[in-house]
Amino acid sequence: MNKLLIILALLLPCSAFAELRGSGDLGIIIEREPAAIQIINTSTQKSLSKITGLGDLSHASVVYSRDARYAYIFGRDGGLTKIDLLQDVISKRIIQAGNSIGGAISQDGKLVAVSNYTPGGVKIFSSETLELIADIPAVYGDGKLSKVVGLVDAPEQKFIFSLFDAGEIWIADVQNPTAPKIEKFKNIGQQPYDALITPDGRYYIAGLFADRGLALLDLWSLEQGVKRILPDYGKQDEKLPVYKMPHLEGWAMAGDFMFIPAVGQHEVLVINRSTWQLVKRIPVIGQPVFVMARPDGRQVWVNFAFPDNAHLQVIDTKNLSLMKSLSPGKAVLHMEFTPRGEQVWVSARDDNRVVIYDTQRLTEMARLSANKPSGIFFSSRAHKLGL
Amino acid sequence: MNKLLIILALLLPCSAFAELRGSGDLGIIIEREPAAIQIINTSTQKSLSKITGLGDLSHASVVYSRDARYAYIFGRDGGLTKIDLLQDVISKRIIQAGNSIGGAISQDGKLVAVSNYTPGGVKIFSSETLELIADIPAVYGDGKLSKVVGLVDAPEQKFIFSLFDAGEIWIADVQNPTAPKIEKFKNIGQQPYDALITPDGRYYIAGLFADRGLALLDLWSLEQGVKRILPDYGKQDEKLPVYKMPHLEGWAMAGDFMFIPAVGQHEVLVINRSTWQLVKRIPVIGQPVFVMARPDGRQVWVNFAFPDNAHLQVIDTKNLSLMKSLSPGKAVLHMEFTPRGEQVWVSARDDNRVVIYDTQRLTEMARLSANKPSGIFFSSRAHKLGL
Repeated sequence: MNKLLIILALLLPCSAFAELRGSGDLGIIIEREPAAIQIINTSTQKSLSKITGLGDLSHASVVYSRDARYAYIFGRDGGLTKIDLLQDVISKRIIQAGNSIGGAISQDGKLVAVSNYTPGGVKIFSSETLELIADIPAVYGDGKLSKVVGLVDAPEQKFIFSLFDAGEIWIADVQNPTAPKIEKFKNIGQQPYDALITPDGRYYIAGLFADRGLALLDLWSLEQGVKRILPDYGKQDEKLPVYKMPHLEGWAMAGDFMFIPAVGQHEVLVINRSTWQLVKRIPVIGQPVFVMARPDGRQVWVNFAFPDNAHLQVIDTKNLSLMKSLSPGKAVLHMEFTPRGEQVWVSARDDNRVVIYDTQRLTEMARLSANKPSGIFFSSRAHKLGL
Repeated sequence: MNKLLIILALLLPCSAFAELRGSGDLGIIIEREPAAIQIINTSTQKSLSKITGLGDLSHASVVYSRDARYAYIFGRDGGLTKIDLLQDVISKRIIQAGNSIGGAISQDGKLVAVSNYTPGGVKIFSSETLELIADIPAVYGDGKLSKVVGLVDAPEQKFIFSLFDAGEIWIADVQNPTAPKIEKFKNIGQQPYDALITPDGRYYIAGLFADRGLALLDLWSLEQGVKRILPDYGKQDEKLPVYKMPHLEGWAMAGDFMFIPAVGQHEVLVINRSTWQLVKRIPVIGQPVFVMARPDGRQVWVNFAFPDNAHLQVIDTKNLSLMKSLSPGKAVLHMEFTPRGEQVWVSARDDNRVVIYDTQRLTEMARLSANKPSGIFFSSRAHKLGL
């Protein structure tokens, strides 16, 4: 009996805390089918664990707590799940809406916001307990509710988002989280479908599904209101069908340039980030989806919509020309760079693998098995504005 | 006997792993006298532990492992100490030289480099074991050894540093760590005393103690060699004594501008970061030492040399004008922003405290006691190029 107790005492605390982990080199791979996540380590390039029971992960995204210990997963089915990366368990899970599209975490790390399609609006939760703190219905016109898209966090404890049906951009100041102060910008263009905030947190840019150009809000000069930039961007001519609307959060800032996917064209557009003027069109092999800069800005990596989605192309940002084409596998959905840029992890959904590249040599370093992998999110996002 | 064993078994593993910690919101405060460090948490704004036995910390700096679990402390006496932030202990400590000035960690996290005065050169260690991997004596002229300053890590697994006595900049490519490849740039100016690398890892800039101007190396165009920029910078006119040469790593990048401390003048200089031309001189209350941007670039914080070192001033980077003056305490030595910028921690050496400010309201949030605090280093540096 005593021996058993000793063995139990020796085993139990150690199994709960078996492996002491720094949380700076962790990440999550979303598996779509069957829905699950893998917790991975970018130093060892290994999978640490798999967690199921997370609902529908067909369009999932992830943000991290400021200590990088917890991940918040936003599922398509309105699920919000808090994962403990140090113990490989679900800390808490709620269904907060009928249909949701993404989320953000406040600058101080205390609030998690979710943007919802059904019912249209933003809900704000305690990052610690997932208790509801505030509800912001996206009311417009005659009391209708709009779908909400393009939700990001911004400096000075703000959330910013766009109302797809209303054509509006709202800023929620959550200094006092139970009573958010809302500032509304109306008539910003028809059907904003996604948005981004620049890495410095200064410019919020929304893509317009039913209008040409992009809606730009300079958060340092709100009194100037929303401007339209790149007046020819968007609504493609009729020649090419658009297989996938490019994600805006996949736009790349590198030095003086912004690299953005042309809609429906086999081109990456290079924009001067001071004047918002087009500098160059770089021909690529397909319709670009994500256009992502290596953290030092020396390369931009591009993936593509069907039928060219087994490929990646790498752009040299000094010469503004292609430097390499790669074929990681079928249906490349997402890419994530390690924070100092020496690796990039690429999900190839239909080959059930994640391929890791050395970004200097442009060669494969390792690969992991994953079931229909889509998004890849590293814990260093904890320290980034707008991610 | 068995009871004792049970109690021991229950206590020991739990005391070793008492508190499970994410490592994303940790940091270190250097205490100069008596020499020690405090491990702190920026979410709770509390001190977690104190560690002694680190030698001379009068000019200490810190880098972090890529998992943010370990800190490497470079002491003035040539000590290199690896701290485990999760267990509040020294993992390993060596004396690697007679007199050292700082260090860096490689892009892949596997190598820690230290720049030494005595003997002049750079030594490279395994980040895991602190075993010596490579020794790069800073040989120049007739076999003399130069003091080494301004050591930084750079993209694609490089270290860059300057030779004070030789007037040279060296790039060490450590892809093959046991046989670094060295590229030397000679006649870059007299007595480089410190250097920085821009946050994107593109430009290496060295300050010149015995020359006017600054030495600039564009790492994307090495064939162009080292250029001299800001030809009037540095060697002050004779009117004002220089109380302290400004640290170059304290320069601020914010939007299109670079904010740098004028040497010996009561001014912060604003430089266009594309043309390297002077845009404006902003008058401040003393000789600036550190000029640091809030991570979103909306503010720049400035501290000062004696006799104005009880103060801080905050510059509004939109208007390029002063917005606030603060008095944290006597002998303000260093400032560190949380990675998303909502807090800044300030050390006031001669009042034995660290003061934490809310950067939006510009008000004090909390203060901690510390013995003669100097440098403050947060674990989010693990994910930054050049820090």
